[in-house]
Amino acid sequence: MRIGIIGAGQLGRMLALAGYPLALQFRFLDSTADSPGAQVAPIVLGPFDDAASLRKLAGDVDLVTYEFENVPVAALHEVAATRPCFPPVDALRVSQDRLLEKELFGRLGIPTPPFRAVDSLADLRAAVAAIGLPCVLKTRRLGYDGRGQRYLRRHADVAAAWDALGGVPLILEGFVSFDREVSIVGARSTRGETRAYPIVANTHREGILRVTVAPVRDARLQRAAEGHLQRLLDHFDYAGVLTIEFFVAGGRLVANEMAPRVHNSGHWTIEGAATSQFENHLRAILGLPLGDTRPVGHAAMVNFIGTMPDRSQLLALPGVHYHDYGKSPRPGRKLGHCTVVAATAAARDAALRKVLRRVGP
Amino acid sequence: MRIGIIGAGQLGRMLALAGYPLALQFRFLDSTADSPGAQVAPIVLGPFDDAASLRKLAGDVDLVTYEFENVPVAALHEVAATRPCFPPVDALRVSQDRLLEKELFGRLGIPTPPFRAVDSLADLRAAVAAIGLPCVLKTRRLGYDGRGQRYLRRHADVAAAWDALGGVPLILEGFVSFDREVSIVGARSTRGETRAYPIVANTHREGILRVTVAPVRDARLQRAAEGHLQRLLDHFDYAGVLTIEFFVAGGRLVANEMAPRVHNSGHWTIEGAATSQFENHLRAILGLPLGDTRPVGHAAMVNFIGTMPDRSQLLALPGVHYHDYGKSPRPGRKLGHCTVVAATAAARDAALRKVLRRVGP
Repeated sequence: MRIGIIGAGQLGRMLALAGYPLALQFRFLDSTADSPGAQVAPIVLGPFDDAASLRKLAGDVDLVTYEFENVPVAALHEVAATRPCFPPVDALRVSQDRLLEKELFGRLGIPTPPFRAVDSLADLRAAVAAIGLPCVLKTRRLGYDGRGQRYLRRHADVAAAWDALGGVPLILEGFVSFDREVSIVGARSTRGETRAYPIVANTHREGILRVTVAPVRDARLQRAAEGHLQRLLDHFDYAGVLTIEFFVAGGRLVANEMAPRVHNSGHWTIEGAATSQFENHLRAILGLPLGDTRPVGHAAMVNFIGTMPDRSQLLALPGVHYHDYGKSPRPGRKLGHCTVVAATAAARDAALRKVLRRVGP
Repeated sequence: MRIGIIGAGQLGRMLALAGYPLALQFRFLDSTADSPGAQVAPIVLGPFDDAASLRKLAGDVDLVTYEFENVPVAALHEVAATRPCFPPVDALRVSQDRLLEKELFGRLGIPTPPFRAVDSLADLRAAVAAIGLPCVLKTRRLGYDGRGQRYLRRHADVAAAWDALGGVPLILEGFVSFDREVSIVGARSTRGETRAYPIVANTHREGILRVTVAPVRDARLQRAAEGHLQRLLDHFDYAGVLTIEFFVAGGRLVANEMAPRVHNSGHWTIEGAATSQFENHLRAILGLPLGDTRPVGHAAMVNFIGTMPDRSQLLALPGVHYHDYGKSPRPGRKLGHCTVVAATAAARDAALRKVLRRVGP
C-alpha cells in the first residue's frame, strides 16, 4: 500500500516514519527537493496546485492525504476524483476560511469569540461597534501562525488595521482574554471509529507554538473538547486526525481554529502516548482499528525555532527525545522539537525547565 | 552526517527509522534491491564481500556500521581503513567463531558450558569423553538460529553427528539443562559511556526466537549479566550495541553467545524502554550521550515467522505495536514482530496471551 502525501514538511516526514512499521510506503509532492519528507521517501517535485504534478502523485499511489491546509481545494477535488483522499476535501475547504470555520463552529454548538465578516472599512467600523474593543482583525484565508492579524485596542487603530489588511476578505473577532490555550487532537477512521487524545496546554510566542504540556487533567474541559471534536468529525464524515485549538476563558472553552491534519500540539504523542497522532492518522485513513490514545506518563514538547540547540546537551538529559527535521535554519522556522516524558507531572516540569535552559529563548 | 549500514535487513531498517529524528541519513549495502532497509533509504547494490561495493558504500558515508555478523572480517578491515567503523572489527571476528568467543568468555570470567575444539572424529570422541553426554556439536562459524548443530544424547550419536557436520572446524559444548534463556543488550559509546537494558527472557522454537518478555526482575542475575557485558565492552574498547545470550541453570548465568549488534531480543525497547536499542546504537557509534535504558512498563515481543498475522486483528488490541519488515513470506523467515506494553506484568501477560492467539503457532 502506497500513500501519497501532499507536502513534504516535518508533518509528512513524521507520517512516513510512523507508517513504515505498518508496511506502508510513501510518495511526497513538494516543490523543494531537500524537504524533510524527501529525506525519508521518494518525492514528486512540483507545486501543490499544478494539475500535472498532482496527477503524477495520484497515479503513483493508492491513497492521498495532505500535511498542510493550503492545498488548493480545486486541485484536491481533482485528486479525490481519481484516488481516495482523506481528510475530506470539505474539511480542508472550511479550514481555509476563518469565516466558514467559525460559522460551522456556531452551527455545531462549539463556542467561538463573537465575529463578523469584514469586506470594507464601513464593515470594519460596524463590526467594531458590534463586537467592541479590544478585537482582532484577521484575513479570512491563509492566515496562520500569527501572520495576517492586527489587534485593535483603540478606535484609532481601526484605519491602520484596515490599511494593513484591507483588500482581501477579512473577519473581525472579539479579543478573548484567555487564561490558557489548549488543543485537542483526535482521529476518526473511515469506519467511523473515533478516539481523542487528552487535551494539552500550548504556549505560543509571536504566534508560533513554543511549548506543549500534556496531558491537561481537567475532566470537565476534556469532556467538552471531546464533544466539540466529535461533532466536527461526524459533520464532515471525517477520516484522519483533526485538531481544534481553544482558548480557556473563565473556565470555558472558546474555539479558535481547527486543522484537518496532524498538528504540532500533537507531537508529544510520539513518545508520550500509547499510539502517536501520526500512526493514528494513517490507521484512520486506511480504515484500521485506531490505537490507544492514552498518555504513557507526563510529557512536554518544546519546538526548536530558528536555530537548533546543541544535540549532545539535550540527549544527555534523561527522558528527552530529539527530533531534527533536516531543515536549514531560518528565523521563525520550525526546525525540530524535543519531547520529555516523565512518570510524574513534577518530574516532567523539572525536566522541561532543564530543556528550556538548553533550548534558549 | 551519513551512516553506511552493511546489510539492509530489518535490523538496518529499524536503525534508519531510529536515526532519522537525529538528523542522520543512511546508505545500505545489500545484494537485494527490495530488502527491508532499501524500502526506507538508498542502497548500494552489491555483495558484502565485494571490495568495490564496500568502497562505494564507504566513499558515500561518514561512518560505517553493520547489522549482521557474517560480514567478512577482511572486507570490514578494508572499510575501517578508510572510515570509522563500529562495532570494532575484532568483536565481529570473535563473534564469528564459537571457539574464540567461548575462549574469550573464559578469559573474562564469563561462565560457559564446558567446550572443546573438534577437528577430527578422534577429537570428537575425546571431547565427548571429557565433557560427557548429553552435549552439542556445533560448527565454529556461521552457525546461528539452530543451523549447524547436532545434539549428542548417546555414544551411538557420535558418528552420525560427525558425518553431518565434520569437515569444517567444530566445537563440542556440554549440554546445559537450563531453566530459561535470558539476554542482555547494552551499549558503549566511543566516549566509553555504557548503559545496559534490563535482562529479558527469551523463548526459542526450532532455534528461532519467538517471544521476548521484558524486563526480568532479578537483581542478582541483572548484576551478573551487567558485569559480564561490561567486561566484554571494555575488552573490545567497544562502540555500539552488544548482546549476550545466556542460559539460566541452577540460578546462574551460563553464556551461550554474543552478537556485536542490535538484537532481536532488544526489539521490545522501541516502545518498551525510554530509548530504543537502535537509537542507542547510533548514539554510541556517534559519541553522543547514551539514552535512558529503563523500561517504561512491562513489555513482550512476539516474532512473526513465516507468515504475517492479520494486521487489523492485532492493531485492535490496546497497547500493541506492529512492525512489518516489508519482506516476502517464506517458511522460517522473520517477517515482522509486535510488541505489547502494559503498566503491570499481569496486564502484559494477559495481552501477550491475546497476541499469541492471533499470531498462531
